[in-house]
Amino acid sequence: MHAEQPAVRTGRAKRLPRAVRERQIMDAAVEVFSRLGFHAASMDEISEVAGISKPMLYAYLGSKEELFATCIRREATRMMEAIAHGVEPDQPPDVQLWSGLRAFFGFVGENRASWQVLHRQASSQGGPFAEELADLRGRAIGLVAALLLHSSGFPDGPRDGGKEAESLAAALVGAGESLADWWLDNPEEPAGVVAARLMNLVWMGFGDLVAGNVWHPPSRRAPEVDTDIGGSTPPAG
Amino acid sequence: MHAEQPAVRTGRAKRLPRAVRERQIMDAAVEVFSRLGFHAASMDEISEVAGISKPMLYAYLGSKEELFATCIRREATRMMEAIAHGVEPDQPPDVQLWSGLRAFFGFVGENRASWQVLHRQASSQGGPFAEELADLRGRAIGLVAALLLHSSGFPDGPRDGGKEAESLAAALVGAGESLADWWLDNPEEPAGVVAARLMNLVWMGFGDLVAGNVWHPPSRRAPEVDTDIGGSTPPAG
Repeated sequence: MHAEQPAVRTGRAKRLPRAVRERQIMDAAVEVFSRLGFHAASMDEISEVAGISKPMLYAYLGSKEELFATCIRREATRMMEAIAHGVEPDQPPDVQLWSGLRAFFGFVGENRASWQVLHRQASSQGGPFAEELADLRGRAIGLVAALLLHSSGFPDGPRDGGKEAESLAAALVGAGESLADWWLDNPEEPAGVVAARLMNLVWMGFGDLVAGNVWHPPSRRAPEVDTDIGGSTPPAG
Repeated sequence: MHAEQPAVRTGRAKRLPRAVRERQIMDAAVEVFSRLGFHAASMDEISEVAGISKPMLYAYLGSKEELFATCIRREATRMMEAIAHGVEPDQPPDVQLWSGLRAFFGFVGENRASWQVLHRQASSQGGPFAEELADLRGRAIGLVAALLLHSSGFPDGPRDGGKEAESLAAALVGAGESLADWWLDNPEEPAGVVAARLMNLVWMGFGDLVAGNVWHPPSRRAPEVDTDIGGSTPPAG
């Protein structure tokens, strides 16, 4: 995205390259949809925030329904890219998982409007938007299942056509989705704390947590990452 | 439900007590909604399956939208009751968790139509139905958070107003929901296998699974419960 050429600002606003203009419109639309919800959001408001005329808005991105679907698709792609880029595939499995969770909660934390549109608005609208969301969930499960299969978590490879990895991936994606949704209502919790809770749940498990065994990031302990997750005093580590 | 008096079958079908009649209608409606989806399901078909006239159907349970909302609410309540009754509160935390997961996946396995209506149909419709689903999720998270707080998983009690337990409960509920949804597309997997995968994920964690440490039910090992979850040979015990 940053690689795009800056618009040559010699004429009117409409001289902007189409890709730049569309990005501006979608940024505005995501903001308005997340703030007002799909129904209350109007094309008037979106065109005003985007700084273009309503006819231009329709010409560029179609009806409100089409615009919303395009927003969901773009935000989903941005999120998947952020996670895929965040994962460190050459690291041990726990660090891979941790980097993926950090990337996911980092994205949600920095793009709350995206997540609001992606998850809450798309869910509450149903129909084709719910299908976009189901499609995103399917892609995320596929990505996580592939990571599980290629990490040492399954040293023997897929013995059952990958069903085992796929079902664990479905559980993990659902856990992340639900926790991120909970986070929308509890925004005061730092990203690192939320990510560390899920990391501890799925890496250590409740069994270890009950016994006071807590997972810590390997090299650094960022001050904002409070990995204390319940149970008694964590061991030095 | 079983405590209800049987209808006195002395007259026409409409002499049935209202509660019994309504239950019959909702059974029929859940079956038709799950098979055809909300849009394709017709009041004609539901009245035919229920064995009553269409005017009576409307008189008892209102419009298709009202009927659908009533179905979601009833199935949600049945599911929550099944889980609450399944949990064995006097057992150690792992057995409590296991009994809850068994109850949940047992319910879904025996009531696939309920789950289809509750989860898929309600999600894909959006609007008030998505709100019913969000409400169910909230109740499930509350139940699980209470179990976590009262089990030894949090021996010190809620140090942070219960946020920690609540967020872990949100993750766990999301994992169960997503895995049950995955199961709809993979119905050949036995309930015990699916429940054991989630148990191992959230109790043992990936860390133990990678090391080949697998959780097994304490007393009995039912033949259909394949708790082998990946990794190398599990230890005896």
